[in-house]
Amino acid sequence: MSENAITTVTVALAGRSYDIHIGQRLLTDGDRIASLVRGQQAIVVSNHTVAPLYLDALLVALGRIDCQVHVLPDGEQYKTLAHVADILDTALASNAARDVTFIALGGGVVGDMTGFAAACFMRGVAFVQVPTTLLAQVDSSVGGKTGVNHPRGKNLIGAFHQPVGVVIDTDTLSTLDPREYSAGLAEVIKYGAIMDLAFFEWLEANIEALRARDPEAVAYAVAQCCTLKARVVADDETEQGNRALLNFGHTFGHAVEAVTGYTTWLHGEAVAIGMRLAAQMSAIDADEQQRLVALLAAAGLPVAAPGLDADALLKAMGHDKKVLAGRIRLILLRSLGDAFVTDAYDDARLTQTLAAVGG
Amino acid sequence: MSENAITTVTVALAGRSYDIHIGQRLLTDGDRIASLVRGQQAIVVSNHTVAPLYLDALLVALGRIDCQVHVLPDGEQYKTLAHVADILDTALASNAARDVTFIALGGGVVGDMTGFAAACFMRGVAFVQVPTTLLAQVDSSVGGKTGVNHPRGKNLIGAFHQPVGVVIDTDTLSTLDPREYSAGLAEVIKYGAIMDLAFFEWLEANIEALRARDPEAVAYAVAQCCTLKARVVADDETEQGNRALLNFGHTFGHAVEAVTGYTTWLHGEAVAIGMRLAAQMSAIDADEQQRLVALLAAAGLPVAAPGLDADALLKAMGHDKKVLAGRIRLILLRSLGDAFVTDAYDDARLTQTLAAVGG
Repeated sequence: MSENAITTVTVALAGRSYDIHIGQRLLTDGDRIASLVRGQQAIVVSNHTVAPLYLDALLVALGRIDCQVHVLPDGEQYKTLAHVADILDTALASNAARDVTFIALGGGVVGDMTGFAAACFMRGVAFVQVPTTLLAQVDSSVGGKTGVNHPRGKNLIGAFHQPVGVVIDTDTLSTLDPREYSAGLAEVIKYGAIMDLAFFEWLEANIEALRARDPEAVAYAVAQCCTLKARVVADDETEQGNRALLNFGHTFGHAVEAVTGYTTWLHGEAVAIGMRLAAQMSAIDADEQQRLVALLAAAGLPVAAPGLDADALLKAMGHDKKVLAGRIRLILLRSLGDAFVTDAYDDARLTQTLAAVGG
Repeated sequence: MSENAITTVTVALAGRSYDIHIGQRLLTDGDRIASLVRGQQAIVVSNHTVAPLYLDALLVALGRIDCQVHVLPDGEQYKTLAHVADILDTALASNAARDVTFIALGGGVVGDMTGFAAACFMRGVAFVQVPTTLLAQVDSSVGGKTGVNHPRGKNLIGAFHQPVGVVIDTDTLSTLDPREYSAGLAEVIKYGAIMDLAFFEWLEANIEALRARDPEAVAYAVAQCCTLKARVVADDETEQGNRALLNFGHTFGHAVEAVTGYTTWLHGEAVAIGMRLAAQMSAIDADEQQRLVALLAAAGLPVAAPGLDADALLKAMGHDKKVLAGRIRLILLRSLGDAFVTDAYDDARLTQTLAAVGG
């Protein structure tokens, strides 16, 4: 891929299909984002970390459009219904009408909250994702999952609401905190682990280039993840079936986040720990388990959370959305690159696995 | 229609089609409501007025199902995002999972809030409407519009979320306050006025029987309204086109409600006033205008709101959802039984019409 190449991936959803554009300098690429705005008015949502870096560029790119800006505090702890209500207040105070477009400029938290605000505003208006973190670029900005957290668990309040477009400027990763960047790599590795052995092997071979943020390696990985996710979402938009595979590591990871009050680990870090636990629960070779752990470690990710209480983790898993009729369903591996959903597992093994979360 | 007849109307929406059952004694009709519950758990939402009357009967009918009850205060002023958050708290506190079913037992406010809570709970779960007011039975329980009010306007926050079924026990109207009952008749008259002249004429001939709550007349009117609404919703679920016709009288009515702080007039009463204003704006015969006004009056409804400020009404209309690109769109009549949406009207005539709101 040359430096100026733009990759476009389509999420095929009949009347709600949309394109993901991936490349460098897309934030300021002429009319690219402005052309996605319906009507003449936009509500641009960002946070206090991202806004100073990229908001001005975005507003210049949106030139002709009447923009109202809403800047959120930065952090998962602000991903609440009350802060979404604030976004809605801003939109209503600016006399936004049904043809307004919401634009999310930031990471997964900004995207989830902006998308949910757009879903609830006048029963649903258009929104555009402009993700600026690796995690948001490869995962949360694609697929229409929006929402907020609740004291009882993550993302328990929300909606499926697809964006009208996603514009991924990989240059924005240059300012990303290294720990946040590694957290994004957890989701990248997830795609390989659950559905694409060749990509997993590519990651094993290129993890150093990725960590060094080599533009070509980054662009390839982001495009590959979006392609895989678009395929899953097109097959199962509202997670009645295979979309659940994307939650590999997340059931465990959410539990780790919940019992640590969402402050110790970044989401991607918790998912990395969760993937290690899920691999340990899976009937795969020790060698394959080890390859996953090694790749996570090479990406700068934790694979253990010392000192956590296994009972508390189990209880926290009871509040995960993936529970049906009282039985926790898990996403496990048949082998690297091949995941499945199951509730047919050994309870003793689950308890044992959770007890080993520390190392 | 014999006293035991049950009418079933289907709302045809491909994968989300559902039935509306209309008849007497349906609340306690064996497994009728229980069979609509997915999974083994239900969140039953009602209010302090309706719960003492019908909650016990519903819970008996739901026998085998694990029910958690949430009772709201009664009134439009409680139709807020904060009170929907309370419903979500109740559901989460009871460990409800994705296969939970929300059940709305009450009027339009309970139905709108419960539906919105179901739309937001874990990105959307099943819900059943059991409407107990005439307004909810003929209008708000059918079609999937859910949501809450905002200080800047009615229903500005919400979602399209279709129920999995609607069970209308017309016996519940026996306990309805006469003023609330008349307010429901406003929506009944609306259907005739906008799309069914024959029904309008039936209403002119049977308004006394309806006001006396004659069971056969009530059952016929409710079934006819649901049939008409189901047809409109099936054609245009998310109000991109003709569904807007159902808002006849509502753009004016919402403005009347807004400038009076939602306390002076019931929704149906404000819609009655709004229909009179809309008829006055329409290029129809004075005789047709007079027939509509006479029918509204015979239904016990107001047709004027003395003392309101025309400028304040116009300003309030600027916040209505039906505004596109700054221009208020109105639903007007070509003739009785034939409505259309337009933004091609005379502004002076609008100001003049609003100035005449007092009589």
